[in-house]
Amino acid sequence: MSVEILRSVAALRGWRQRPGSVGLVPTMGALHAGHASLVSAARAENDRVVVSLFVNPTQFGPGEDYQAYPREEGADLALLGSLGADAAFLPAVEEVYPPGDATRVMPGPIATLLEGARRPGHFTGVATVVTKLLAMTEPDRAYFGQKDFQQLRVVQSVARDLALRAEIVPCPIVRDADGLALSSRNAYLSPEERVLALSLSRGLTAAAAAHGRGERDADRLRAIASDIASQAGTPDYVSVAEPLTLRELTGAADRAVILLACRVGKTRLIDNVLLGLPLEELRAGV
Amino acid sequence: MSVEILRSVAALRGWRQRPGSVGLVPTMGALHAGHASLVSAARAENDRVVVSLFVNPTQFGPGEDYQAYPREEGADLALLGSLGADAAFLPAVEEVYPPGDATRVMPGPIATLLEGARRPGHFTGVATVVTKLLAMTEPDRAYFGQKDFQQLRVVQSVARDLALRAEIVPCPIVRDADGLALSSRNAYLSPEERVLALSLSRGLTAAAAAHGRGERDADRLRAIASDIASQAGTPDYVSVAEPLTLRELTGAADRAVILLACRVGKTRLIDNVLLGLPLEELRAGV
Repeated sequence: MSVEILRSVAALRGWRQRPGSVGLVPTMGALHAGHASLVSAARAENDRVVVSLFVNPTQFGPGEDYQAYPREEGADLALLGSLGADAAFLPAVEEVYPPGDATRVMPGPIATLLEGARRPGHFTGVATVVTKLLAMTEPDRAYFGQKDFQQLRVVQSVARDLALRAEIVPCPIVRDADGLALSSRNAYLSPEERVLALSLSRGLTAAAAAHGRGERDADRLRAIASDIASQAGTPDYVSVAEPLTLRELTGAADRAVILLACRVGKTRLIDNVLLGLPLEELRAGV
Repeated sequence: MSVEILRSVAALRGWRQRPGSVGLVPTMGALHAGHASLVSAARAENDRVVVSLFVNPTQFGPGEDYQAYPREEGADLALLGSLGADAAFLPAVEEVYPPGDATRVMPGPIATLLEGARRPGHFTGVATVVTKLLAMTEPDRAYFGQKDFQQLRVVQSVARDLALRAEIVPCPIVRDADGLALSSRNAYLSPEERVLALSLSRGLTAAAAAHGRGERDADRLRAIASDIASQAGTPDYVSVAEPLTLRELTGAADRAVILLACRVGKTRLIDNVLLGLPLEELRAGV
Protein backbone atom coordinates (compact mmCIF):
# COMPACT_ATOMS: atom_id res chain seq x y z
CA MET A 1 0.00 0.00 0.00
CA SER A 2 1.29 3.41 -0.82
CA VAL A 3 1.57 6.18 1.74
CA GLU A 4 0.21 9.62 0.91
CA ILE A 5 2.96 12.17 1.37
CA LEU A 6 1.95 15.49 2.95
CA ARG A 7 4.55 18.24 3.14
CA SER A 8 2.45 21.26 4.14
CA VAL A 9 0.00 22.04 6.92
CA ALA A 10 -2.55 22.88 4.22
CA ALA A 11 -2.14 19.42 2.68
CA LEU A 12 -2.43 17.81 6.11
CA ARG A 13 -5.60 19.76 6.92
CA GLY A 14 -7.06 18.78 3.55
CA TRP A 15 -6.30 15.13 4.26
CA ARG A 16 -7.87 15.47 7.72
CA GLN A 17 -11.16 16.74 6.27
CA ARG A 18 -12.06 13.31 4.95
CA PRO A 19 -14.41 11.30 7.16
CA GLY A 20 -13.30 8.87 9.87
CA SER A 21 -11.26 8.86 13.03
CA VAL A 22 -7.56 9.69 12.83
CA GLY A 23 -4.58 8.44 14.82
CA LEU A 24 -1.36 10.46 14.81
CA VAL A 25 2.06 8.94 15.43
CA PRO A 26 4.56 11.77 15.93
CA THR A 27 8.14 10.69 15.20
CA MET A 28 11.49 12.18 14.29
CA GLY A 29 11.93 9.59 11.53
CA ALA A 30 14.71 6.98 11.52
CA LEU A 31 11.94 4.52 12.19
CA HIS A 32 12.46 1.19 13.91
CA ALA A 33 10.27 -1.57 15.34
CA GLY A 34 9.38 0.68 18.28
CA HIS A 35 7.77 3.18 15.93
CA ALA A 36 6.20 0.30 14.01
CA SER A 37 4.44 -0.79 17.19
CA LEU A 38 3.00 2.73 17.56
CA VAL A 39 1.72 2.63 13.99
CA SER A 40 0.16 -0.79 14.60
CA ALA A 41 -1.57 0.47 17.74
CA ALA A 42 -2.88 3.48 15.83
CA ARG A 43 -3.94 1.26 12.94
CA ALA A 44 -6.00 -0.91 15.29
CA GLU A 45 -7.92 1.98 16.87
CA ASN A 46 -8.51 4.50 14.09
CA ASP A 47 -9.96 4.64 10.59
CA ARG A 48 -6.88 6.42 9.30
CA VAL A 49 -3.28 6.81 10.49
CA VAL A 50 -0.88 9.64 9.81
CA VAL A 51 2.76 9.50 10.91
CA SER A 52 4.68 12.75 11.23
CA LEU A 53 8.41 12.62 10.54
CA PHE A 54 10.04 15.82 11.74
CA VAL A 55 13.39 16.29 13.41
CA ASN A 56 12.35 19.08 15.73
CA PRO A 57 15.14 21.63 16.17
CA THR A 58 13.75 23.21 19.35
CA GLN A 59 14.10 20.06 21.43
CA PHE A 60 17.84 19.78 20.78
CA GLY A 61 20.23 21.77 22.95
CA PRO A 62 23.47 23.40 21.80
CA GLY A 63 26.06 20.68 21.25
CA GLU A 64 23.41 17.98 20.90
CA ASP A 65 22.95 15.86 17.77
CA TYR A 66 20.38 17.86 15.77
CA GLN A 67 22.56 17.90 12.65
CA ALA A 68 23.76 14.32 13.06
CA TYR A 69 20.37 12.85 13.93
CA PRO A 70 19.69 10.04 11.41
CA ARG A 71 17.43 11.03 8.52
CA GLU A 72 16.26 8.17 6.31
CA GLU A 73 13.19 9.38 4.47
CA GLY A 74 13.17 6.70 1.78
CA ALA A 75 13.49 3.78 4.18
CA ASP A 76 10.96 5.37 6.56
CA LEU A 77 8.34 5.74 3.82
CA ALA A 78 8.88 2.17 2.67
CA LEU A 79 8.37 0.91 6.22
CA LEU A 80 5.25 3.03 6.68
CA GLY A 81 3.84 1.61 3.46
CA SER A 82 4.40 -1.92 4.68
CA LEU A 83 2.73 -1.07 8.01
CA GLY A 84 -0.39 0.28 6.34
CA ALA A 85 -0.03 3.89 7.45
CA ASP A 86 -2.27 6.10 5.32
CA ALA A 87 -0.22 9.26 5.26
CA ALA A 88 3.17 10.67 6.21
CA PHE A 89 3.53 14.29 7.24
CA LEU A 90 7.02 15.55 6.37
CA PRO A 91 7.01 19.30 6.94
CA ALA A 92 9.95 21.60 6.32
CA VAL A 93 11.18 23.43 9.43
CA GLU A 94 9.54 26.68 8.21
CA GLU A 95 6.19 24.92 8.00
CA VAL A 96 6.30 24.13 11.72
CA TYR A 97 8.16 27.28 12.78
CA PRO A 98 6.87 30.00 10.44
CA PRO A 99 8.63 33.37 10.11
CA GLY A 100 8.25 35.32 13.34
CA ASP A 101 7.44 32.20 15.34
CA ALA A 102 8.19 32.80 19.01
CA THR A 103 5.45 31.13 21.08
CA ARG A 104 6.57 28.34 23.35
CA VAL A 105 4.59 25.85 25.43
CA MET A 106 6.19 25.52 28.86
CA PRO A 107 5.33 22.34 30.75
CA GLY A 108 5.23 22.40 34.55
CA PRO A 109 7.60 21.01 37.20
CA ILE A 110 7.59 17.53 35.67
CA ALA A 111 9.74 18.96 32.88
CA THR A 112 12.43 20.26 35.21
CA LEU A 113 13.49 16.84 36.58
CA LEU A 114 15.73 14.12 35.11
CA GLU A 115 16.04 14.74 31.35
CA GLY A 116 14.74 18.27 31.87
CA ALA A 117 17.53 19.03 34.32
CA ARG A 118 20.21 17.63 31.97
CA ARG A 119 18.74 19.04 28.76
CA PRO A 120 17.50 22.58 29.50
CA GLY A 121 14.71 23.60 27.18
CA HIS A 122 14.30 20.06 25.79
CA PHE A 123 10.77 19.56 27.06
CA THR A 124 9.71 23.07 26.11
CA GLY A 125 10.71 22.10 22.58
CA VAL A 126 8.84 18.80 22.85
CA ALA A 127 5.71 20.39 24.33
CA THR A 128 5.74 23.12 21.69
CA VAL A 129 6.11 20.83 18.69
CA VAL A 130 3.58 18.31 20.00
CA THR A 131 1.05 21.10 20.62
CA LYS A 132 1.61 22.31 17.06
CA LEU A 133 1.36 18.82 15.55
CA LEU A 134 -1.85 18.14 17.48
CA ALA A 135 -3.31 21.48 16.35
CA MET A 136 -2.31 20.81 12.74
CA THR A 137 -3.63 17.25 12.67
CA GLU A 138 -6.56 17.41 15.12
CA PRO A 139 -6.33 13.65 15.64
CA ASP A 140 -8.63 11.60 17.82
CA ARG A 141 -5.63 9.83 19.36
CA ALA A 142 -1.88 10.34 19.40
CA TYR A 143 0.60 7.55 20.18
CA PHE A 144 3.76 7.88 22.26
CA GLY A 145 6.25 5.24 23.36
CA GLN A 146 6.96 4.40 26.98
CA LYS A 147 10.65 4.42 26.04
CA ASP A 148 10.66 8.22 26.49
CA PHE A 149 8.63 7.93 29.65
CA GLN A 150 9.18 11.45 30.91
CA GLN A 151 8.25 12.80 27.47
CA LEU A 152 5.06 10.72 27.61
CA ARG A 153 4.12 12.20 30.98
CA VAL A 154 5.02 15.73 29.86
CA VAL A 155 2.84 15.36 26.76
CA GLN A 156 -0.04 13.91 28.79
CA SER A 157 0.22 16.80 31.26
CA VAL A 158 0.27 19.40 28.49
CA ALA A 159 -2.68 17.76 26.72
CA ARG A 160 -4.66 17.73 29.96
CA ASP A 161 -3.75 21.30 30.92
CA LEU A 162 -4.40 22.81 27.49
CA ALA A 163 -7.62 20.79 27.10
CA LEU A 164 -6.39 19.26 23.85
CA ARG A 165 -9.03 16.91 22.59
CA ALA A 166 -6.72 14.10 21.43
CA GLU A 167 -6.24 11.12 23.70
CA ILE A 168 -2.54 10.54 24.41
CA VAL A 169 -2.01 6.78 24.15
CA PRO A 170 1.09 5.19 25.69
CA CYS A 171 2.64 2.13 24.02
CA PRO A 172 5.10 -0.32 25.63
CA ILE A 173 8.84 -0.26 25.05
CA VAL A 174 9.99 -2.51 22.22
CA ARG A 175 13.28 -4.27 22.93
CA ASP A 176 15.73 -6.26 20.86
CA ALA A 177 15.91 -9.97 21.73
CA ASP A 178 18.85 -9.22 24.05
CA GLY A 179 16.86 -6.60 25.95
CA LEU A 180 18.23 -3.35 24.51
CA ALA A 181 15.43 -0.79 24.21
CA LEU A 182 15.04 0.26 20.58
CA SER A 183 16.17 3.81 19.86
CA SER A 184 17.14 5.65 16.71
CA ARG A 185 20.32 6.60 18.56
CA ASN A 186 21.37 2.94 18.90
CA ALA A 187 22.70 3.43 15.37
CA TYR A 188 25.52 5.48 16.93
CA LEU A 189 26.79 2.49 18.99
CA SER A 190 29.86 0.47 18.04
CA PRO A 191 29.48 -3.33 18.41
CA GLU A 192 31.46 -3.18 21.67
CA GLU A 193 29.32 -0.30 23.01
CA ARG A 194 26.17 -2.16 22.09
CA VAL A 195 27.26 -5.05 24.33
CA LEU A 196 28.05 -2.63 27.16
CA ALA A 197 24.65 -0.96 26.72
CA LEU A 198 22.86 -4.18 27.65
CA SER A 199 23.70 -3.49 31.29
CA LEU A 200 21.04 -0.75 31.28
CA SER A 201 18.10 -3.05 30.61
CA ARG A 202 19.70 -5.75 32.79
CA GLY A 203 19.79 -3.35 35.71
CA LEU A 204 16.14 -2.46 35.23
CA THR A 205 15.14 -6.08 34.82
CA ALA A 206 16.95 -7.03 38.02
CA ALA A 207 15.22 -4.25 39.95
CA ALA A 208 11.85 -5.26 38.50
CA ALA A 209 12.50 -8.86 39.51
CA ALA A 210 13.33 -7.73 43.05
CA HIS A 211 10.10 -5.68 43.11
CA GLY A 212 8.27 -8.79 41.90
CA ARG A 213 9.72 -10.73 44.83
CA GLY A 214 8.38 -8.08 47.21
CA GLU A 215 11.23 -5.61 47.51
CA ARG A 216 9.61 -2.21 48.10
CA ASP A 217 12.43 -0.07 49.41
CA ALA A 218 13.14 2.69 46.90
CA ASP A 219 16.80 2.97 47.92
CA ARG A 220 17.41 -0.76 47.50
CA LEU A 221 15.62 -0.87 44.14
CA ARG A 222 17.68 2.10 43.00
CA ALA A 223 20.90 0.40 44.15
CA ILE A 224 20.07 -2.84 42.31
CA ALA A 225 19.42 -1.00 39.03
CA SER A 226 22.36 1.33 39.49
CA ASP A 227 24.94 -1.34 40.34
CA ILE A 228 24.29 -3.24 37.14
CA ALA A 229 23.65 -0.23 34.88
CA SER A 230 26.96 1.28 35.96
CA GLN A 231 28.74 -1.50 34.09
CA ALA A 232 27.72 0.35 30.89
CA GLY A 233 29.22 3.66 32.02
CA THR A 234 28.60 6.23 34.72
CA PRO A 235 24.82 6.85 34.74
CA ASP A 236 23.57 10.44 34.52
CA TYR A 237 20.88 9.35 36.90
CA VAL A 238 19.08 6.28 38.20
CA SER A 239 15.75 7.43 39.56
CA VAL A 240 13.04 5.53 41.41
CA ALA A 241 10.12 7.87 40.97
CA GLU A 242 6.41 8.26 41.46
CA PRO A 243 5.12 7.38 37.97
CA LEU A 244 2.78 10.33 37.43
CA THR A 245 4.82 13.26 38.76
CA LEU A 246 8.29 11.63 38.46
CA ARG A 247 9.13 12.91 41.93
CA GLU A 248 11.91 10.84 43.48
CA LEU A 249 10.63 8.25 45.92
CA THR A 250 12.08 7.49 49.34
CA GLY A 251 10.75 4.67 51.45
CA ALA A 252 8.04 2.43 50.00
CA ALA A 253 7.89 2.09 46.23
CA ASP A 254 4.71 0.09 45.67
CA ARG A 255 4.08 1.86 42.41
CA ALA A 256 7.13 3.34 40.72
CA VAL A 257 9.00 3.95 37.55
CA ILE A 258 12.74 3.36 37.48
CA LEU A 259 14.33 5.67 34.94
CA LEU A 260 17.95 5.85 33.97
CA ALA A 261 20.18 7.72 31.58
CA CYS A 262 23.74 6.74 30.77
CA ARG A 263 26.35 7.70 28.24
CA VAL A 264 27.79 4.64 26.54
CA GLY A 265 30.85 5.87 24.69
CA LYS A 266 29.58 9.10 23.15
CA THR A 267 25.96 7.96 22.91
CA ARG A 268 23.48 8.97 25.56
CA LEU A 269 20.85 6.28 26.14
CA ILE A 270 17.75 6.21 28.34
CA ASP A 271 15.57 3.36 29.50
CA ASN A 272 12.91 2.70 32.15
CA VAL A 273 10.65 0.13 33.71
CA LEU A 274 7.23 0.62 35.26
CA LEU A 275 6.48 -1.23 38.51
CA GLY A 276 3.08 -1.88 40.06
CA LEU A 277 1.22 0.23 37.49
CA PRO A 278 0.02 -1.20 34.17
CA LEU A 279 0.93 1.15 31.32
CA GLU A 280 -2.68 1.09 30.13
CA GLU A 281 -3.73 2.92 33.28
CA LEU A 282 -1.80 5.93 32.04
CA ARG A 283 -4.17 6.08 29.12
CA ALA A 284 -6.85 7.88 31.05
CA GLY A 285 -4.87 11.11 30.86
CA VAL A 286 -4.13 11.44 34.54
CA MET B 1 -34.23 33.94 22.88
CA SER B 2 -32.74 31.98 25.69
CA VAL B 3 -29.05 31.28 25.99
CA GLU B 4 -27.89 27.74 26.69
CA ILE B 5 -25.71 27.74 29.77
CA LEU B 6 -22.64 25.50 29.71
CA ARG B 7 -20.59 25.17 32.87
CA SER B 8 -18.27 22.27 32.03
CA VAL B 9 -15.86 21.48 29.23
CA ALA B 10 -17.83 18.29 28.65
CA ALA B 11 -21.04 20.27 28.16
CA LEU B 12 -19.23 22.69 25.82
CA ARG B 13 -17.82 19.83 23.74
CA GLY B 14 -21.27 18.25 23.55
CA TRP B 15 -22.73 21.55 22.34
CA ARG B 16 -19.91 21.86 19.79
CA GLN B 17 -20.72 18.45 18.25
CA ARG B 18 -23.89 19.77 16.65
CA PRO B 19 -23.53 20.72 13.00
CA GLY B 20 -22.65 24.19 11.72
CA SER B 21 -19.86 26.73 12.06
CA VAL B 22 -19.12 28.21 15.47
CA GLY B 23 -17.90 31.64 16.53
CA LEU B 24 -16.37 32.09 19.99
CA VAL B 25 -16.36 35.38 21.85
CA PRO B 26 -14.02 35.07 24.84
CA THR B 27 -14.83 37.58 27.60
CA MET B 28 -14.32 38.13 31.30
CA GLY B 29 -18.00 39.01 31.69
CA ALA B 30 -19.18 42.44 32.86
CA LEU B 31 -20.40 42.83 29.31
CA HIS B 32 -20.90 46.18 27.63
CA ALA B 33 -21.58 47.44 24.10
CA GLY B 34 -18.01 46.58 23.10
CA HIS B 35 -18.64 42.94 23.84
CA ALA B 36 -22.05 43.22 22.16
CA SER B 37 -20.32 44.29 18.95
CA LEU B 38 -18.14 41.16 19.12
CA VAL B 39 -21.23 38.99 19.53
CA SER B 40 -22.89 40.73 16.59
CA ALA B 41 -19.83 40.17 14.39
CA ALA B 42 -19.76 36.51 15.41
CA ARG B 43 -23.51 36.24 14.83
CA ALA B 44 -23.11 37.55 11.27
CA GLU B 45 -20.38 35.08 10.28
CA ASN B 46 -21.24 31.80 12.04
CA ASP B 47 -24.12 29.40 12.37
CA ARG B 48 -23.78 29.40 16.14
CA VAL B 49 -22.19 31.71 18.69
CA VAL B 50 -20.81 30.84 22.10
CA VAL B 51 -19.61 33.49 24.53
CA SER B 52 -17.24 32.49 27.31
CA LEU B 53 -17.45 34.44 30.57
CA PHE B 54 -14.44 33.66 32.70
CA VAL B 55 -12.43 35.98 34.91
CA ASN B 56 -9.05 34.39 34.28
CA PRO B 57 -6.90 34.42 37.42
CA THR B 58 -3.57 33.86 35.64
CA GLN B 59 -3.70 37.14 33.74
CA PHE B 60 -3.95 39.22 36.90
CA GLY B 61 -0.77 40.13 38.77
CA PRO B 62 -0.38 40.40 42.54
CA GLY B 63 -2.11 43.56 43.70
CA GLU B 64 -4.26 43.77 40.59
CA ASP B 65 -8.05 43.67 40.62
CA TYR B 66 -8.80 39.94 40.23
CA GLN B 67 -11.05 39.86 43.30
CA ALA B 68 -12.67 43.23 42.58
CA TYR B 69 -13.21 42.65 38.87
CA PRO B 70 -16.93 43.16 38.19
CA ARG B 71 -18.98 39.95 38.01
CA GLU B 72 -22.53 40.35 36.76
CA GLU B 73 -23.66 36.95 35.56
CA GLY B 74 -27.40 37.67 35.55
CA ALA B 75 -27.11 40.88 33.57
CA ASP B 76 -24.57 39.31 31.23
CA LEU B 77 -26.85 36.39 30.40
CA ALA B 78 -29.81 38.70 29.81
CA LEU B 79 -27.71 40.78 27.40
CA LEU B 80 -26.48 37.68 25.59
CA GLY B 81 -30.06 36.51 25.18
CA SER B 82 -31.06 39.81 23.64
CA LEU B 83 -28.08 39.65 21.28
CA GLY B 84 -28.99 36.20 20.01
CA ALA B 85 -25.96 34.35 21.36
CA ASP B 86 -26.65 30.63 21.37
CA ALA B 87 -24.62 29.58 24.37
CA ALA B 88 -22.68 30.95 27.30
CA PHE B 89 -19.69 29.06 28.69
CA LEU B 90 -19.26 29.83 32.40
CA PRO B 91 -16.63 27.46 33.73
CA ALA B 92 -15.44 27.29 37.32
CA VAL B 93 -11.75 28.04 37.79
CA GLU B 94 -11.03 24.32 38.34
CA GLU B 95 -12.60 23.51 34.99
CA VAL B 96 -10.06 25.68 33.19
CA TYR B 97 -7.16 25.01 35.57
CA PRO B 98 -7.61 21.37 36.64
CA PRO B 99 -5.73 19.92 39.61
CA GLY B 100 -2.03 19.71 38.79
CA ASP B 101 -2.33 22.25 35.99
CA ALA B 102 1.07 23.79 35.32
CA THR B 103 1.47 24.24 31.55
CA ARG B 104 1.81 27.80 30.32
CA VAL B 105 1.81 29.25 26.84
CA MET B 106 4.57 31.85 26.54
CA PRO B 107 4.15 34.36 23.73
CA GLY B 108 7.23 35.86 22.10
CA PRO B 109 8.84 39.31 22.32
CA ILE B 110 5.58 41.12 21.48
CA ALA B 111 4.40 40.17 24.98
CA THR B 112 7.36 41.82 26.72
CA LEU B 113 6.58 45.38 25.58
CA LEU B 114 4.08 47.97 26.86
CA GLU B 115 1.44 46.13 28.93
CA GLY B 116 3.75 43.13 29.15
CA ALA B 117 6.50 45.25 30.72
CA ARG B 118 4.09 46.80 33.26
CA ARG B 119 2.16 43.61 34.00
CA PRO B 120 4.68 40.74 34.19
CA GLY B 121 3.05 37.42 33.31
CA HIS B 122 -0.14 39.08 32.09
CA PHE B 123 0.18 37.92 28.50
CA THR B 124 1.33 34.45 29.51
CA GLY B 125 -1.98 34.22 31.38
CA VAL B 126 -3.87 35.55 28.37
CA ALA B 127 -2.12 33.25 25.89
CA THR B 128 -2.66 30.26 28.16
CA VAL B 129 -6.36 30.81 28.75
CA VAL B 130 -7.06 31.65 25.11
CA THR B 131 -5.23 28.50 23.98
CA LYS B 132 -7.34 26.49 26.43
CA LEU B 133 -10.60 28.14 25.37
CA LEU B 134 -9.82 27.57 21.70
CA ALA B 135 -8.95 23.92 22.39
CA MET B 136 -12.13 23.45 24.42
CA THR B 137 -14.40 25.13 21.88
CA GLU B 138 -12.67 24.36 18.57
CA PRO B 139 -14.42 27.33 16.97
CA ASP B 140 -14.11 28.35 13.34
CA ARG B 141 -13.55 31.96 14.37
CA ALA B 142 -12.80 33.81 17.60
CA TYR B 143 -13.50 37.50 18.11
CA PHE B 144 -11.27 39.98 19.92
CA GLY B 145 -11.64 43.72 20.38
CA GLN B 146 -9.12 46.25 19.10
CA LYS B 147 -9.45 47.97 22.48
CA ASP B 148 -6.88 45.52 23.89
CA PHE B 149 -4.73 45.88 20.83
CA GLN B 150 -1.60 44.25 22.21
CA GLN B 151 -3.70 41.34 23.45
CA LEU B 152 -5.16 40.99 19.95
CA ARG B 153 -1.69 40.83 18.42
CA VAL B 154 -0.44 38.42 21.10
CA VAL B 155 -3.39 36.12 20.46
CA GLN B 156 -2.94 36.33 16.69
CA SER B 157 0.76 35.49 17.08
CA VAL B 158 0.04 32.54 19.37
CA ALA B 159 -2.66 31.23 17.04
CA ARG B 160 -0.30 31.46 14.07
CA ASP B 161 2.65 29.90 15.92
CA LEU B 162 0.68 27.03 17.44
CA ALA B 163 -1.17 26.42 14.16
CA LEU B 164 -4.54 26.83 15.86
CA ARG B 165 -7.23 26.42 13.25
CA ALA B 166 -9.53 29.21 14.43
CA GLU B 167 -9.38 32.54 12.62
CA ILE B 168 -8.72 35.38 15.07
CA VAL B 169 -11.04 38.20 14.02
CA PRO B 170 -10.36 41.75 15.21
CA CYS B 171 -13.31 44.08 15.87
CA PRO B 172 -13.16 47.88 16.17
CA ILE B 173 -13.17 49.77 19.46
CA VAL B 174 -16.62 50.82 20.62
CA ARG B 175 -16.71 54.26 22.25
CA ASP B 176 -19.26 56.19 24.23
CA ALA B 177 -20.68 59.24 22.47
CA ASP B 178 -18.06 61.40 24.18
CA GLY B 179 -15.21 59.21 22.89
CA LEU B 180 -14.35 57.15 25.96
CA ALA B 181 -13.42 53.62 24.90
CA LEU B 182 -15.77 51.13 26.54
CA SER B 183 -14.18 49.00 29.24
CA SER B 184 -15.52 46.96 32.11
CA ARG B 185 -13.11 48.92 34.29
CA ASN B 186 -14.85 52.22 33.45
CA ALA B 187 -17.25 51.17 36.21
CA TYR B 188 -14.50 52.05 38.69
CA LEU B 189 -14.43 55.73 37.61
CA SER B 190 -16.04 58.51 39.64
CA PRO B 191 -17.98 61.10 37.60
CA GLU B 192 -15.02 63.50 37.90
CA GLU B 193 -12.54 60.84 36.82
CA ARG B 194 -14.71 59.91 33.88
CA VAL B 195 -14.47 63.49 32.61
CA LEU B 196 -10.69 63.47 33.08
CA ALA B 197 -10.45 60.14 31.23
CA LEU B 198 -11.78 61.74 28.04
CA SER B 199 -8.34 63.26 27.49
CA LEU B 200 -7.06 59.82 26.50
CA SER B 201 -9.27 59.45 23.45
CA ARG B 202 -8.90 63.16 22.71
CA GLY B 203 -5.13 62.76 22.55
CA LEU B 204 -5.42 59.82 20.20
CA THR B 205 -7.97 61.60 18.02
CA ALA B 206 -5.74 64.67 17.77
CA ALA B 207 -2.76 62.54 16.72
CA ALA B 208 -4.91 60.66 14.20
CA ALA B 209 -6.09 63.97 12.79
CA ALA B 210 -2.50 65.17 12.44
CA HIS B 211 -1.64 61.89 10.69
CA GLY B 212 -4.62 62.47 8.40
CA ARG B 213 -3.20 65.92 7.53
CA GLY B 214 0.10 64.30 6.56
CA GLU B 215 2.09 64.34 9.79
CA ARG B 216 4.35 61.27 9.65
CA ASP B 217 6.98 61.98 12.29
CA ALA B 218 6.63 59.41 15.07
CA ASP B 219 8.03 61.76 17.73
CA ARG B 220 5.61 64.53 16.83
CA LEU B 221 2.63 62.16 16.73
CA ARG B 222 3.65 60.82 20.13
CA ALA B 223 3.95 64.34 21.51
CA ILE B 224 0.51 65.36 20.26
CA ALA B 225 -1.14 62.31 21.88
CA SER B 226 0.91 62.58 25.02
CA ASP B 227 0.35 66.32 25.64
CA ILE B 228 -3.42 65.90 25.66
CA ALA B 229 -3.56 62.48 27.34
CA SER B 230 -1.44 63.81 30.19
CA GLN B 231 -4.36 65.98 31.24
CA ALA B 232 -5.99 62.75 32.52
CA GLY B 233 -2.98 61.80 34.64
CA THR B 234 0.62 60.76 34.11
CA PRO B 235 0.57 58.16 31.33
CA ASP B 236 2.34 54.85 31.91
CA TYR B 237 3.32 55.05 28.28
CA VAL B 238 2.37 56.68 25.01
CA SER B 239 3.76 54.53 22.22
CA VAL B 240 3.84 55.06 18.46
CA ALA B 241 4.53 51.56 17.29
CA GLU B 242 4.71 49.34 14.25
CA PRO B 243 1.24 47.75 14.28
CA LEU B 244 2.26 44.09 13.85
CA THR B 245 5.27 43.80 16.17
CA LEU B 246 4.47 46.81 18.42
CA ARG B 247 8.11 47.87 18.21
CA GLU B 248 8.47 51.57 18.94
CA LEU B 249 8.79 53.68 15.79
CA THR B 250 11.25 56.47 15.22
CA GLY B 251 11.16 58.59 12.09
CA ALA B 252 8.40 57.96 9.56
CA ALA B 253 5.14 56.51 10.87
CA ASP B 254 3.16 55.83 7.69
CA ARG B 255 1.51 52.86 9.29
CA ALA B 256 1.35 52.87 13.06
CA VAL B 257 -0.64 52.20 16.16
CA ILE B 258 -0.62 54.74 18.96
CA LEU B 259 -1.13 52.98 22.27
CA LEU B 260 -1.41 54.54 25.67
CA ALA B 261 -2.00 53.55 29.25
CA CYS B 262 -2.82 55.96 32.04
CA ARG B 263 -4.00 55.73 35.60
CA VAL B 264 -6.99 57.99 36.19
CA GLY B 265 -7.41 58.13 39.92
CA LYS B 266 -6.92 54.50 40.91
CA THR B 267 -8.19 53.09 37.61
CA ARG B 268 -5.76 52.06 34.92
CA LEU B 269 -7.14 52.67 31.43
CA ILE B 270 -5.77 51.83 27.99
CA ASP B 271 -6.73 53.03 24.54
CA ASN B 272 -5.29 53.07 21.04
CA VAL B 273 -5.76 54.20 17.47
CA LEU B 274 -4.62 52.52 14.28
CA LEU B 275 -3.17 54.76 11.55
CA GLY B 276 -2.65 53.87 7.89
CA LEU B 277 -3.72 50.27 8.33
CA PRO B 278 -7.36 49.17 8.14
CA LEU B 279 -8.19 46.85 11.05
CA GLU B 280 -9.59 44.30 8.60
CA GLU B 281 -6.10 43.74 7.22
CA LEU B 282 -5.14 42.23 10.57
CA ARG B 283 -7.68 39.53 9.94
CA ALA B 284 -5.39 37.52 7.72
CA GLY B 285 -3.42 36.32 10.71
CA VAL B 286 -0.17 38.09 9.92
